[in-house]
Amino acid sequence: MSICQKNIKIYKGQIAYTPTPEGFMTVEDGFIVVEASKVKDVYCTLPNKYKNIHVEDYGNNLIIPGFIDLHSHASQVANRGIGLDKELLDWLLAHTFKEETKFEDMNYAEAAYKEHINLLIKNGTTRASLLGTIHRESAELLMDIAARAGLGGFVGKVNMDRESPDYYIENTYHSISETEKFIRNTLGKYKMMGPIITPRFVPATTPQLMWALREIVRKFDLPVQSHLSEDIKELEYVKRLHPEFIDYASIYNYFGMFGQRPTIMAHCVYVSDEEIALMARSGVYVAHCPAANFNLSGSVAPIRKFLLAGVNVGLGTDIGAGHVISIKDVIWQAIQASRVYELRTNHKYKALTTAEAFYLATKGGGSFFGKVGSFEPGYDFDALVIDDSNIFTVNPRNILERLERFIYIGDHRNIVQKFIAGEHVI
Amino acid sequence: MSICQKNIKIYKGQIAYTPTPEGFMTVEDGFIVVEASKVKDVYCTLPNKYKNIHVEDYGNNLIIPGFIDLHSHASQVANRGIGLDKELLDWLLAHTFKEETKFEDMNYAEAAYKEHINLLIKNGTTRASLLGTIHRESAELLMDIAARAGLGGFVGKVNMDRESPDYYIENTYHSISETEKFIRNTLGKYKMMGPIITPRFVPATTPQLMWALREIVRKFDLPVQSHLSEDIKELEYVKRLHPEFIDYASIYNYFGMFGQRPTIMAHCVYVSDEEIALMARSGVYVAHCPAANFNLSGSVAPIRKFLLAGVNVGLGTDIGAGHVISIKDVIWQAIQASRVYELRTNHKYKALTTAEAFYLATKGGGSFFGKVGSFEPGYDFDALVIDDSNIFTVNPRNILERLERFIYIGDHRNIVQKFIAGEHVI
Repeated sequence: MSICQKNIKIYKGQIAYTPTPEGFMTVEDGFIVVEASKVKDVYCTLPNKYKNIHVEDYGNNLIIPGFIDLHSHASQVANRGIGLDKELLDWLLAHTFKEETKFEDMNYAEAAYKEHINLLIKNGTTRASLLGTIHRESAELLMDIAARAGLGGFVGKVNMDRESPDYYIENTYHSISETEKFIRNTLGKYKMMGPIITPRFVPATTPQLMWALREIVRKFDLPVQSHLSEDIKELEYVKRLHPEFIDYASIYNYFGMFGQRPTIMAHCVYVSDEEIALMARSGVYVAHCPAANFNLSGSVAPIRKFLLAGVNVGLGTDIGAGHVISIKDVIWQAIQASRVYELRTNHKYKALTTAEAFYLATKGGGSFFGKVGSFEPGYDFDALVIDDSNIFTVNPRNILERLERFIYIGDHRNIVQKFIAGEHVI
Repeated sequence: MSICQKNIKIYKGQIAYTPTPEGFMTVEDGFIVVEASKVKDVYCTLPNKYKNIHVEDYGNNLIIPGFIDLHSHASQVANRGIGLDKELLDWLLAHTFKEETKFEDMNYAEAAYKEHINLLIKNGTTRASLLGTIHRESAELLMDIAARAGLGGFVGKVNMDRESPDYYIENTYHSISETEKFIRNTLGKYKMMGPIITPRFVPATTPQLMWALREIVRKFDLPVQSHLSEDIKELEYVKRLHPEFIDYASIYNYFGMFGQRPTIMAHCVYVSDEEIALMARSGVYVAHCPAANFNLSGSVAPIRKFLLAGVNVGLGTDIGAGHVISIKDVIWQAIQASRVYELRTNHKYKALTTAEAFYLATKGGGSFFGKVGSFEPGYDFDALVIDDSNIFTVNPRNILERLERFIYIGDHRNIVQKFIAGEHVI
């Protein structure tokens, strides 16, 4: 056995993944060979050269890529399932901002952020782009907790210096200096986690702050995350604040935060065809958060339009506007939302297939983090082992039926093993 | 202590229920006095006359009415979460009918029906109106299993004698005679369960069969359940089959199955204002199944219109078109659907509040079964005790916030005690 084979691990089971949105790749009793944290390949029959290496045999269990959460407010974990019969702007004032002020208290932050990260991992999320609050120190703590748990992804310290309640707003200069400090304290510190610039959304950030963030993005070569067109009232609000811009996306674009560096925009419900074209050209990622959209406004993002235009799309829980913490539940809410959209457009824009929604939940969002979300050669081995034997089965079910069933009616108890970048995570 | 006090039980906890859709009634550390299976009253302070009776103290746990499922295909339990990226009529052919043929086999039926009833009880459903298949014997078995489990409600042997696949269709005379036999074998047999006449839907039943069912309904004074306007293609199908009728509802009405006896119609998505008026006048119950409607067609029933018109509305899981088995999950899907409807009608028809959706899930549907679904005096004591201590809590939460949170993010493990008509159910 050569030295390099020491880095090789082999996992056996009922394998399913989506190299493309068009359909699943499945292998019954297949083998995934992992070398130094990356997938070497997937095999129906194990090649002879691996015969002497131990095979971790998961038997009849499914092996699927880990879930990717492109948008989750870690600071809203205590608000899950609260106040969801309100609309967005009312809900922000009644619940969100008040909750976020508490993260000045590091003990509060530690309790809440540990819970959030624990829930993500428990529910099979392997990478996430997280939002903290305006507080730098607790955002640093969130990154530390996430990194220690083995989660991959980004954490943003939120910036907001206008149009916010007195009790939850930053001075522009303080916002800028704290953001720089946040970057210096976290950039390069962890293998799998890093900082992401996070202006809350256009209404809450002055042009002055946006210019400064643009400089920080360039200087440190950082990714960006924010919100775009979640709600009609928000859209009107943005138009009132910035009549000088042709649309909402152009504002982010003007300030160098729309694909100049890797960018995630949550929601994107009310975007024009011109905005969609810009998103496609700029490589902006949509974090599609169907549960949040249903909850706070009954709206549906035009995901089929995005896919047809070549826009990158992943899924997000958007805790706490979204209440479901598991991306598998976001998958079926995304399919439901896409059916609503199909019906609304008189069947012009077809609903998502299960394969397409699963792709968004894995490789679609995963590509924001590198080669993540698939079992193709060279991909980071992010994987979940699914034991669905507690689900009532009186008929033979193939891998895809079992996977679909897990997505719709399973829960975190079915996820019996988790791997992130080759590491076994508990 | 008088003899009658032996029949008295007292439960203490954090009580919430909805006597009207307008809002919750809550009592902190309140007492529910139950006499001979019925609620005597709810008290903040226990009256002196009860001081010597043992109080079952559930401490900080919530006590709420049991959930009511107005529409559930027990025969579809093995199909949960399968094939849900298809549309209704395709899905029926690909999955539903094939599954239902298996219920000729009593062993298969026993396994599946036990699972379904077990899931209902586990998830806090205390009353249900269930659909079996065309097979009389297995429908009788379903009723027996439900009754033994302590569930209250109805079971229907399905009738279908046209426009159905060759492998799953009845001869008209056989359908009639088997239905009569089903009624004779089950009527009055159980305290809490009884038969309900169940023509599948207009497309699948000949006028000849409908006339005969009308006679059976009258002769035995039976309730009725069926489907109404679930899907646009179904609606067009009905128009092609029955151009002589002005609308879909009028067909059921003509055949004496639209409120002449207590009637549940599932879905009612595409109903006209005239049909809504008829439903209100006739006291027809809508079984609102938002998860099923989202899954198979992206459609939304006009629940606010129903409520404004005075139509009776309850919630249904509609397993397996709906995948969620717990009515608490149907509650939040109903709120989401109502938001979609509000947005679609440009805010003319307001979304459901949490109280309204909870009312539909309890007293709204419960009234089909008698005085069920509330803790008002004289109501059957159907109750769930909810221990939500596993849900992350860093802020003080009142009863309603805890209840809303349980609805959105809890699961069956939070339901620690169940009572149906005063009986403790396990």
